[in-house]
Amino acid sequence: MRTQVGIIGAGPAGLLLSRLLQLQGIDTVVLENRSREYVEARIRAGILEQHTVSTLIDAGVGDRLQREGLPHDGVHLQYPGTRHHLDFAELCGRKVWLYGQSEVVKDLIAAQLDDGPPLLFDVSDVVPEDVDGDSPRIRFTDADGTPQVLECDAIAGTDGFHGVSRPVVTAAGGRTWERTYPYAWLGILADVAPSSDELVYAWHPEGFALLSMRSPSVSRLYLQVDPTEKIEDWSDDRIWDGLSTRFALDGWELQTGPVTEKSILPMRSFVSAPMRRGRLFLAGDAAHIVPPTGAKGLNLAVADVTLLAEALVRLLADERTDLVDSYSDRALARVWRCTHFSWWMTSMFHRSGDDFDAELQLSQLRRVCGSETAARELAENYTGLPLDR
Amino acid sequence: MRTQVGIIGAGPAGLLLSRLLQLQGIDTVVLENRSREYVEARIRAGILEQHTVSTLIDAGVGDRLQREGLPHDGVHLQYPGTRHHLDFAELCGRKVWLYGQSEVVKDLIAAQLDDGPPLLFDVSDVVPEDVDGDSPRIRFTDADGTPQVLECDAIAGTDGFHGVSRPVVTAAGGRTWERTYPYAWLGILADVAPSSDELVYAWHPEGFALLSMRSPSVSRLYLQVDPTEKIEDWSDDRIWDGLSTRFALDGWELQTGPVTEKSILPMRSFVSAPMRRGRLFLAGDAAHIVPPTGAKGLNLAVADVTLLAEALVRLLADERTDLVDSYSDRALARVWRCTHFSWWMTSMFHRSGDDFDAELQLSQLRRVCGSETAARELAENYTGLPLDR
Repeated sequence: MRTQVGIIGAGPAGLLLSRLLQLQGIDTVVLENRSREYVEARIRAGILEQHTVSTLIDAGVGDRLQREGLPHDGVHLQYPGTRHHLDFAELCGRKVWLYGQSEVVKDLIAAQLDDGPPLLFDVSDVVPEDVDGDSPRIRFTDADGTPQVLECDAIAGTDGFHGVSRPVVTAAGGRTWERTYPYAWLGILADVAPSSDELVYAWHPEGFALLSMRSPSVSRLYLQVDPTEKIEDWSDDRIWDGLSTRFALDGWELQTGPVTEKSILPMRSFVSAPMRRGRLFLAGDAAHIVPPTGAKGLNLAVADVTLLAEALVRLLADERTDLVDSYSDRALARVWRCTHFSWWMTSMFHRSGDDFDAELQLSQLRRVCGSETAARELAENYTGLPLDR
Repeated sequence: MRTQVGIIGAGPAGLLLSRLLQLQGIDTVVLENRSREYVEARIRAGILEQHTVSTLIDAGVGDRLQREGLPHDGVHLQYPGTRHHLDFAELCGRKVWLYGQSEVVKDLIAAQLDDGPPLLFDVSDVVPEDVDGDSPRIRFTDADGTPQVLECDAIAGTDGFHGVSRPVVTAAGGRTWERTYPYAWLGILADVAPSSDELVYAWHPEGFALLSMRSPSVSRLYLQVDPTEKIEDWSDDRIWDGLSTRFALDGWELQTGPVTEKSILPMRSFVSAPMRRGRLFLAGDAAHIVPPTGAKGLNLAVADVTLLAEALVRLLADERTDLVDSYSDRALARVWRCTHFSWWMTSMFHRSGDDFDAELQLSQLRRVCGSETAARELAENYTGLPLDR
């Protein structure tokens, strides 16, 4: 087998990269070690920045997003006694869209299987080889158990935090940075109409809570818990009690309903640099992880592959190396901006147990809610800074 | 002896309060346990916010400040390879003034001794009493060793972090918050013209450095050091070497000269609430300490006494308690804003030894230097937010 760009991993990064390259006449093959069902069912983030939405629409995979996605003009920030609406559109002229990552993935898979390049699920033993030369290859075993070799001009490692690509890059040098946070999110899906039209980020002495949604009839809610907590110890009643306490506001009530899914998510910041070794390029979670506060993970993956697609087209169609050579530095500038913003949002809302920290958080929140300048700084970052190409 | 407001402590807070009350026809007596020489020689901060300058001018003690103070339109922020000028005047329409705290104190003492109310130096054994009633008093021993009783309508505790006033307030309840930072400043005065017209805040892998000045011929420079360092281990050469490394910039050179003073300053955040017990009111360092990064200490003291003077005039001239009752909450709102800002500036510039922290700091600095919104947020806080009365 042979292709121009071998793509390891059919998450949103790999699938969108394949789509963007296909539109520019570059051949790809996407390899995924999970099943289609598994990939489409993975529940992840749900907030898309404007640049992410534009990218998906321009790539011809935005029809359902435009029909079913919910534009949000802002968010609510809450601390005891106060719920303040930040109007992003007014503050910085941009907004965000609510549309689940799993829906983005479904749309990309449907497009790829419809008229796109090969997309192979259930592969195993994936190994990128000879990435330092001009003719790298990917060895893998296909779904039928047959060993295969995919000869490529370049390889994209979009196989997530636990994938095989990053270790190949870091084996040749580079650095990683990591921060594990002393808290986790207990997330639920519930069959109940969202109690707020837009997201509510709530600071509370008992810990952070986030009210989000998946659709007009499905709520998505999160509760800060200790990372050592076990999900078995959290009955639905205990979860709703915790959420009701943390979102409490005079004249407003949290609507409850059947919990259809619950899990505990660890929170971590992680950055690996460089994002390239020879002809192997990392994008998305394969190179960096942000904590979910601020909803940057998916948007950062889309920004990475937007840069990477341009760079690969220039390399393969025009035989110019300038953009692949600068890809890692350009991507990492945005990665660190979003890593800082995600850390800042996380640090502003989560109770650390230290009372001085708590007063700093409240002072920062009051400032954001009371100052147009501070509100605009949050809004510009939250809605996504312009892609610096 | 009897007065309307007994003021404990002749730092800038107590002296300015005395001045403001005198202008409104309220009698005061200021008690200070140090000598005039000691008080006037204490080297402290040197950056005055616009509201501090206006307050001093309006109080008739701004003549020399207007002649000798140096208006600064902004500051320079530096990290390796970059020195960026933030233009406060352009960003938020305000500027700051360079004029040493010791000069402010000299001006206030001169005015008080010229035509003002009593100012007693070298007193001892100061004890505020019966502060819960309407007739508190201060017992003390005067400079001649004679025990005295000062009967008052109200007492102002402006006697700094180690003074006797705060313990009297906290004995009746309340809370304190404290953060000790894992770094200190090694500060020097040097007889050399400042190498920059405005302050330079420098991030460097070896630690923070700050270039400031006292006059056109005297430089004030600071170097982040470990709080366990001993000043004996820092020769002048070692200090200048460290400063030259941290301020290094192509095409620019740090001018060196004779070091006339050097000392190591610990860094701490501290807040005590409430700032009142009955007829005893705290202001300035007696109630709160900020680390020096951001130069908020003196300005916060001036803001406190501006609010306190109004409140005491209303209490004593109009017999209305509304402003004294709300004094603590109104003062603390600003205290926490400045405590947060000072913590933020400190956290952005000082090396903690953690490499992830370092990348967050650089990302934040690049954002402040590259975004008008982020720059304005720093500028508004640095130049001083409007006094919320």
